[in-house]
Amino acid sequence: MRNRPGRHFLQIPGPTNVPGRVLEAIGRPTIDHRGPEFAALGRECLDAMRRMLGTRGRVVIFPSSGTGAWEAALVNTLSPGDRVLVYETGHFARLWAEVARRLGLEVETVEGDWRSGVDAGAIEKALSRDAGGARSIRAVAVLHNETSTGAASDVPAVRQALDASGHPALLLVDTISSLASMPYEHDGWGVDVTVAGSQKGLMLPPGLGFNAVSEKAWRAGAAAKLARSYWDWRAMEDPNAAGYFPFTPATNLLFGLKEAVAMLEEEGMERVFDRHRRFAAATRRAVQAWGLDFNCRRPEHRSASLTAVRMPDGWSADALRALILERFDVSLGNGLGKLDDRVFRIGHLGDLNDVTLLGTLAAVEMGLGLAGAPFQRGGVDAAMDHLAAAPAAMVDSS
Amino acid sequence: MRNRPGRHFLQIPGPTNVPGRVLEAIGRPTIDHRGPEFAALGRECLDAMRRMLGTRGRVVIFPSSGTGAWEAALVNTLSPGDRVLVYETGHFARLWAEVARRLGLEVETVEGDWRSGVDAGAIEKALSRDAGGARSIRAVAVLHNETSTGAASDVPAVRQALDASGHPALLLVDTISSLASMPYEHDGWGVDVTVAGSQKGLMLPPGLGFNAVSEKAWRAGAAAKLARSYWDWRAMEDPNAAGYFPFTPATNLLFGLKEAVAMLEEEGMERVFDRHRRFAAATRRAVQAWGLDFNCRRPEHRSASLTAVRMPDGWSADALRALILERFDVSLGNGLGKLDDRVFRIGHLGDLNDVTLLGTLAAVEMGLGLAGAPFQRGGVDAAMDHLAAAPAAMVDSS
Amino acid sequence: MRNRPGRHFLQIPGPTNVPGRVLEAIGRPTIDHRGPEFAALGRECLDAMRRMLGTRGRVVIFPSSGTGAWEAALVNTLSPGDRVLVYETGHFARLWAEVARRLGLEVETVEGDWRSGVDAGAIEKALSRDAGGARSIRAVAVLHNETSTGAASDVPAVRQALDASGHPALLLVDTISSLASMPYEHDGWGVDVTVAGSQKGLMLPPGLGFNAVSEKAWRAGAAAKLARSYWDWRAMEDPNAAGYFPFTPATNLLFGLKEAVAMLEEEGMERVFDRHRRFAAATRRAVQAWGLDFNCRRPEHRSASLTAVRMPDGWSADALRALILERFDVSLGNGLGKLDDRVFRIGHLGDLNDVTLLGTLAAVEMGLGLAGAPFQRGGVDAAMDHLAAAPAAMVDSS
Amino acid sequence: MRNRPGRHFLQIPGPTNVPGRVLEAIGRPTIDHRGPEFAALGRECLDAMRRMLGTRGRVVIFPSSGTGAWEAALVNTLSPGDRVLVYETGHFARLWAEVARRLGLEVETVEGDWRSGVDAGAIEKALSRDAGGARSIRAVAVLHNETSTGAASDVPAVRQALDASGHPALLLVDTISSLASMPYEHDGWGVDVTVAGSQKGLMLPPGLGFNAVSEKAWRAGAAAKLARSYWDWRAMEDPNAAGYFPFTPATNLLFGLKEAVAMLEEEGMERVFDRHRRFAAATRRAVQAWGLDFNCRRPEHRSASLTAVRMPDGWSADALRALILERFDVSLGNGLGKLDDRVFRIGHLGDLNDVTLLGTLAAVEMGLGLAGAPFQRGGVDAAMDHLAAAPAAMVDSS
Repeated sequence: MRNRPGRHFLQIPGPTNVPGRVLEAIGRPTIDHRGPEFAALGRECLDAMRRMLGTRGRVVIFPSSGTGAWEAALVNTLSPGDRVLVYETGHFARLWAEVARRLGLEVETVEGDWRSGVDAGAIEKALSRDAGGARSIRAVAVLHNETSTGAASDVPAVRQALDASGHPALLLVDTISSLASMPYEHDGWGVDVTVAGSQKGLMLPPGLGFNAVSEKAWRAGAAAKLARSYWDWRAMEDPNAAGYFPFTPATNLLFGLKEAVAMLEEEGMERVFDRHRRFAAATRRAVQAWGLDFNCRRPEHRSASLTAVRMPDGWSADALRALILERFDVSLGNGLGKLDDRVFRIGHLGDLNDVTLLGTLAAVEMGLGLAGAPFQRGGVDAAMDHLAAAPAAMVDSS
Repeated sequence: MRNRPGRHFLQIPGPTNVPGRVLEAIGRPTIDHRGPEFAALGRECLDAMRRMLGTRGRVVIFPSSGTGAWEAALVNTLSPGDRVLVYETGHFARLWAEVARRLGLEVETVEGDWRSGVDAGAIEKALSRDAGGARSIRAVAVLHNETSTGAASDVPAVRQALDASGHPALLLVDTISSLASMPYEHDGWGVDVTVAGSQKGLMLPPGLGFNAVSEKAWRAGAAAKLARSYWDWRAMEDPNAAGYFPFTPATNLLFGLKEAVAMLEEEGMERVFDRHRRFAAATRRAVQAWGLDFNCRRPEHRSASLTAVRMPDGWSADALRALILERFDVSLGNGLGKLDDRVFRIGHLGDLNDVTLLGTLAAVEMGLGLAGAPFQRGGVDAAMDHLAAAPAAMVDSS
Repeated sequence: MRNRPGRHFLQIPGPTNVPGRVLEAIGRPTIDHRGPEFAALGRECLDAMRRMLGTRGRVVIFPSSGTGAWEAALVNTLSPGDRVLVYETGHFARLWAEVARRLGLEVETVEGDWRSGVDAGAIEKALSRDAGGARSIRAVAVLHNETSTGAASDVPAVRQALDASGHPALLLVDTISSLASMPYEHDGWGVDVTVAGSQKGLMLPPGLGFNAVSEKAWRAGAAAKLARSYWDWRAMEDPNAAGYFPFTPATNLLFGLKEAVAMLEEEGMERVFDRHRRFAAATRRAVQAWGLDFNCRRPEHRSASLTAVRMPDGWSADALRALILERFDVSLGNGLGKLDDRVFRIGHLGDLNDVTLLGTLAAVEMGLGLAGAPFQRGGVDAAMDHLAAAPAAMVDSS
Repeated sequence: MRNRPGRHFLQIPGPTNVPGRVLEAIGRPTIDHRGPEFAALGRECLDAMRRMLGTRGRVVIFPSSGTGAWEAALVNTLSPGDRVLVYETGHFARLWAEVARRLGLEVETVEGDWRSGVDAGAIEKALSRDAGGARSIRAVAVLHNETSTGAASDVPAVRQALDASGHPALLLVDTISSLASMPYEHDGWGVDVTVAGSQKGLMLPPGLGFNAVSEKAWRAGAAAKLARSYWDWRAMEDPNAAGYFPFTPATNLLFGLKEAVAMLEEEGMERVFDRHRRFAAATRRAVQAWGLDFNCRRPEHRSASLTAVRMPDGWSADALRALILERFDVSLGNGLGKLDDRVFRIGHLGDLNDVTLLGTLAAVEMGLGLAGAPFQRGGVDAAMDHLAAAPAAMVDSS
């Protein structure tokens, strides 16, 4: 158990701070997953996830991390040797490509610079090269929000790229670090398989993975030959219809899921999204005031759920993070893969308010000073200016 | 939230009643899975599972149900088309075989009668048939405790069958509903891969799957060609050594795991096993007094963690269970597969004491009466006689 | 923290088993007791207690034990030297009289036999002796349910005794161990001051004391000269009207109070009372089957919330209780005052269901056997017969 | 339940933010207050409070608010008509005097300016006037920390004033808002009765009141004639020796007390005090940067547990507090009595770390701006400078 006074600020880009109401729910006595009380819970959770994912179609819930939901998206729709086009926005796109390779798929990568969102034009170009009767690319995989770089992508533009090139490939989208923090529309955006997890905008601990599945993806599954058992969507179908699961679900996390979605919907999803935009804007003001570089170069690509900040050359981001953790009990996200030790990431998603964000930014500002890194003061001031000027939509307490 | 007065008695053979200390632990704020505090937790959990599983070797923890750990045992050790010998003790053995088939393995089944444990002689015979240079059976899969029938099996005898036939197949054992309720020794019994889950004797909610891995199984993995990513043991190796995981772990369930193992070890594993034996004996006295049949025919095969009771012919076990749930708020396990509506199963594992067991048996006795089923009274009396005569080893309160 | 497996059965006649929903509520973050969120809570709690106590008039909530509410009833209505008539039904009536003496009142006792409820005729007789202009008895104090003896009293009959004798004394009634377990009507029964506590039928931990106050008692308070500050009703009046308290309230217990009353009202108070009657009846069947004596001689006086059982002569009730606690982890109430070591008390109030009661009775039956006390088996059987035959009104789960 | 996103910042000067470990403890199942498990808890709590209060003598724990402990200090030591000298440092001193008057004591007040601590010289003068054989002042009552004004007092200097005047009056000290935040020594400072509560530095919800009692105060109690029952120290003596209480204690708050003291002692009391000094210093830097006045004029009197800030003339402190609560979900303390609407009070005591304090100060700074009050920016910057420069003593996580 932690011995430090006060509350830890978990400001990594997920897992996020789990609200008390959700922790309470998770801490309730486990129930019979084959009993009538569970059936109601199961149906509520599936419906809730439909609303969160923006679909009236099928959703699937796995006892797994988000990584598992990546795997499920692939094994349910593809066959050994199928080609998948992955846009490498950063570390997590690379990891998803790696999962595909391990499962026996052929991966074609569109290289990104790890400092911006998806260039839909590059996807269109790649798809155009895959023309004619042969058309071997079976799926295009992109991340709505690349957690390692802080860059969000325009999913409708990717959909348009597929449509423009008349390519029949499935569109697979990872919304792990954007769901319930940034608007997302599985049906509206024409996504075939969406991949999500519990531990970010949904304000839950890790342990649940999600898929949303279009009719086209479902039909593709009938012919898909990759071996699957645990991840098999079809095994879910009948039990899910009655509120049950084909194997023992993570009951207590489902208690939490029901409560977390209730909280989000009490706040109102538009307000939730506004709140995240507002936090992102305040954080960017702080970064600009400090005179530091954003990892994500293009302002319009910058994520509403996290901000990745580049350390000045020659300075260790990990040393800064360690100092901030030790001195101020604030956790920040680390640089991953190519960005190792080069960036630190401020998570501003999930169950968060203005003063928690300002406390976090204060820790960064003090930490930069203590580290001796070249920067200007004034980040917290700039963030306060923004937050004071731009009121959050208020929610009445019940 | 439940509206019924008093505490629900969750007496299915898992998930079991999660103790308050474990629920508290699970309800704590999620922490950074890449931070120093997590590293200590991760190491403690891996060590704790080594002790629970009886191994000094490798253990693997997945965010998954036990079903996932079945899949992991197969994909990490076998190649497409490999033959697996599965002893069909009941419904769950059949499901494991089905998993194997879906993953592209060839399954050879030793048929059981769903009313007893493994007949090691039948395994030896099957292995003997697979003689000569060709020896195509790569693994033998058995359940230590068949949750659907209430029959436990003699794992060392199965090991001996392999040894006696000089067969090099791997021995895969499922201990999902016996671990931490009945003695189990991965190393001592010469098991190659053990499969376990969190929601039974470990007194946790569902959501964690476990493997223990022998050196032989690990080496087999190097040549195993089944596709794997999420379940890949090797990806765990380096991060685990430092207390971390290759993808986001189910942090809050790990909080619970640490606490649950601490509780079991405070009680003392021998006492834990004795307690389960004692509950099983008391339950059997009740069943005998009622004049009902055990599903498991042979007394020496009857499980210490659950008792499956056959309804008199013509009577519905599910109707009885529904009545008991409605009238007494006690959940019992249902019959599965071939035993559908034929048996009800009393879980007497996990966090349980004498009076909870007696309340449960009272519910069954009253339920049998209300259902009008042919039976004799006196089951609770018989169980009381046993429990009063055979004191539990007492644990001092701290 | 407790090290014993399974859940402790807290079957003393209060504190009772606190339901999980209430424990959750109590474990929520404390709020500003002068802020707007608290105002709503304060009003809800005061209203809830009006409903529980059966009054449309004033209720007062103290951060205190029930003992404090005894004191408050006296100091707010009486002056030094005033005479109070206390009917000594048992230990707690005696303690209340002792409180009165310490506060400078003169106590006249109507002796009871500690084995029955109030004899209203005896009160009428005592009041008649106090006739004429002098009439010096200012208050009559009785317990609705004497927790030490298991005897309930007919409060309306006491009211009638006052009315019949035309005596102007105030009627003070303690409903500490009956409130929310047995019907109680402060207004309807013409009670002047009711005294209650949180830790019995209200299913809360101890720490809140309550008064309900008639107009007559309120007016008497204007002239009452006993010194008072903490317990002063008048200081509550203005802050309470706005939902606040004159000094810092026990905020977290108020969280629990709101939740507990919500639970009771979801069940429905008539069902709550029926449930307690049913548990009492089942317990009495068990006691009769054992061949033991009730401490409360007259069946119609026997409490619905607890049953006090006399040990056979020469046998120690405390030794039995210690044995049952050690062997079965069940707490029973001890004999108090004159009944020390002579009775054990089974609490069957609060958050309780059939199987918990049967587990408790099983512990008693096994304990009697182990103690070697003279008794007959069959108590649990008799209780099962009653509970199976007399269904509880069922509450649908939400 | 609250609907606002993120965690409320409860920065009033008590109740303070209750840490998760303590909330967990409070949310555990209530136990038998007459059983062996409770006896250990009771003893541990009494011992823990001895250490907190700095005494090897008697401590008393009441189920009550701190107000109740004020009353207990008086009724256990004084007789009707006794004179008490109260130094009116502010609102709470005045309230204590009012309690004394209501209980029938004669109060002599030393007027303070509500902007500083006790002037020990004024006490010495008042005592000197009460010379000769008649010496009618029986007790001197002061607050160690006046929560309404933010001024702390030099208790040893008050002791010296009594000693210098050779006056035999008892010294009664209220440490409600300083205990466990600022050093306090009941024995070492020669205090006769100390008054404390649970909801401030002890990091508990309200509901427990405490007294520490010197031998002299105990002996005075033998002759004290004020009526008392609930508050009677002597009734505690025998039960407390065995770990029990004379009436039902607030069991669940005692669970919390044990845990809270464990947490404080794991941190180390010197570190706890240093931390509070550091937070006070940072807060003062902010106030000075804003150009606002401290309510407490003399720097050396300023409290380490809270800072009362005066609003510029013509500006409403309550309007500012309401705005900050609505916009930023931060609760600040209000002005009380004479200071109504004139000051706001920042609580920096209890379970708190640097970033929570900075978030709080940011809310104040933004609020001042939004209110349009005359002030300078730079408060948060100044506080950051202080906190970054003056590292807290670090506590290793276990």
